[in-house]
Amino acid sequence: MAYKTVDWQDNAVVLIDQTALPGEFHRVTLRDYREVAEAIKKMVVRGAPAIGVTAALGVALGAQAAPEIGWGAFSAYLSEIERVFKSTRPTAVNLFWGVDRILAVADQNRTEGITAAKLAMVQEARLMIQEDLDRNHAMGQFGAELISDGDRCLTHCNAGALATVGYGTALSVFRAAVESGKRIQVYADETRPRLQGMKLTAWELHQDQIPVTIICDNMAGWLMKKGKVQKIFVGADRIAANGDTANKIGTYSLAVLAHFHHVPFYVVAPTSTIDSGIETGEKIPIEYRDEEEVVSIEGHRLAPEEVPALNPSFDVTPSELITAIITEKGVIPAPFSASILSDI
Amino acid sequence: MAYKTVDWQDNAVVLIDQTALPGEFHRVTLRDYREVAEAIKKMVVRGAPAIGVTAALGVALGAQAAPEIGWGAFSAYLSEIERVFKSTRPTAVNLFWGVDRILAVADQNRTEGITAAKLAMVQEARLMIQEDLDRNHAMGQFGAELISDGDRCLTHCNAGALATVGYGTALSVFRAAVESGKRIQVYADETRPRLQGMKLTAWELHQDQIPVTIICDNMAGWLMKKGKVQKIFVGADRIAANGDTANKIGTYSLAVLAHFHHVPFYVVAPTSTIDSGIETGEKIPIEYRDEEEVVSIEGHRLAPEEVPALNPSFDVTPSELITAIITEKGVIPAPFSASILSDI
Repeated sequence: MAYKTVDWQDNAVVLIDQTALPGEFHRVTLRDYREVAEAIKKMVVRGAPAIGVTAALGVALGAQAAPEIGWGAFSAYLSEIERVFKSTRPTAVNLFWGVDRILAVADQNRTEGITAAKLAMVQEARLMIQEDLDRNHAMGQFGAELISDGDRCLTHCNAGALATVGYGTALSVFRAAVESGKRIQVYADETRPRLQGMKLTAWELHQDQIPVTIICDNMAGWLMKKGKVQKIFVGADRIAANGDTANKIGTYSLAVLAHFHHVPFYVVAPTSTIDSGIETGEKIPIEYRDEEEVVSIEGHRLAPEEVPALNPSFDVTPSELITAIITEKGVIPAPFSASILSDI
Repeated sequence: MAYKTVDWQDNAVVLIDQTALPGEFHRVTLRDYREVAEAIKKMVVRGAPAIGVTAALGVALGAQAAPEIGWGAFSAYLSEIERVFKSTRPTAVNLFWGVDRILAVADQNRTEGITAAKLAMVQEARLMIQEDLDRNHAMGQFGAELISDGDRCLTHCNAGALATVGYGTALSVFRAAVESGKRIQVYADETRPRLQGMKLTAWELHQDQIPVTIICDNMAGWLMKKGKVQKIFVGADRIAANGDTANKIGTYSLAVLAHFHHVPFYVVAPTSTIDSGIETGEKIPIEYRDEEEVVSIEGHRLAPEEVPALNPSFDVTPSELITAIITEKGVIPAPFSASILSDI
């Protein structure tokens, strides 16, 4: 893609508006941190790594408007920014990681003064843009080695360039495989309720001329039974210390189906997605979103009035169902230890 | 429901227009057999048992317009009607069963003459309306015995009153359980691509005040993992002699998930759905429908232009994954023999 999904330009946060894709491609320029937080909440930007960098840029952006009357007031101002970002979406740990990293930079610059701290925060956030791209290319290299020429691969939701600054997590594997000359076919689960697979994954792979075919989520098992899926690659929103992985709703079902059909199931995520503070997936908070996302599509209510719906946005795949976790530092193969970070 | 899904009134076939539900309830009156065939093709009426009765009524309707110049011409006229109906939808065996049964009545009345044959065909088709209702109530009774008070049950697509003349197949079990005083909660898979679960199952259960909650298809596995599904009941479009069951796409995935989570998985279908002429599910023809059904919703294209999609309308669940098949003649429990009809 010609543009970064998340960028810093002229003292503003610039995002590709993913709610308009694939019908329309445009970018939004946000100059107030509250707009950035709102963009995360409304999923103008989504995908754990992209959310992490966006939140970091948002905190840095917010800090620029802080009064310079003393460190106490500055610190209080930052606390409010922190609160706003941390209450946007609960599941992706990268968000908390991004916010904390920028706030730590402020602390580190306390003796230098507020002006210096503000500058350092922007520098750190901009550094994270490049780091994200580097990590994604590294994951792509590691993952591509697992792909054979002619493989038909399945992915769920969008773990692509649009879920990161660029190049993607799960989709980085497909890009790197194609760049190394391998021929692949990708099946994109449409990914109800918000259809990120149909709208975003299909769009960005088609842009890059990687063969992609859309399927409904409920067709994946049948394709596996018919021998049409050789490997599955998905992203992650939070990985517990033991490898249990929270990702878009439907990932768990896919992992069970992959297990039943002996199809390798790979999670592709930067180490920033691993939350060592959480022992197992049982403790990962799952975001429930508005049931309108299920019962209405493009503003049309399709369900009968008054009938309720469930809308858990994520599920947790236990590590026993995961073949390997691909990070920017290398591939962690199953069986996983109680602390997978120490296995790299 | 106050109306039959499929009915014969004043020499016409009357159908509830299911493409308009749940937004609008109206019925269409068809006086030409080609309109009836078109209604099956366009899914104005759908669901294997409903298709079977509709096709039977359609053949009887068509026969009324046949010339009475001799049995040869009458027979040729009926052959054309047969061809039209049998080319509407390939998977549901009830359609073939319904057409053949009415044509057999014509043959049986050959010595009585064409006028008598026409009359007998209508009588036979009308008899099938009542037989369908009787069978569904019988299945409901057998199935309800398997339900415990407080069960949370999952169903896929619409195997309800709308998939039959009335009362339903899988949904007959819920109706009979509630009528016998058991409290249940139903989860309705939305059932992409055409959303019959969200639109039809939710509508008819809500009409009957049976608690129903809509979920996306990809949430079912997660609900099972969380212990929220005690039993699964689905319908069938064709059952091979050995119990392998073709049903709406996504049924197979559900059966695998049920197996993994030790959740009982029941198929509810009249014996007319069992095709003894087909040994195993491998030989059941699977209908592929237009990919527009996947990439567009309510006339809005949601996928990027030029990206292909798959749209198999059904899948086949091997009998090993089925706990029992509930018919109007009784419950056939696993393990199944090579000829389940002889197990009743």
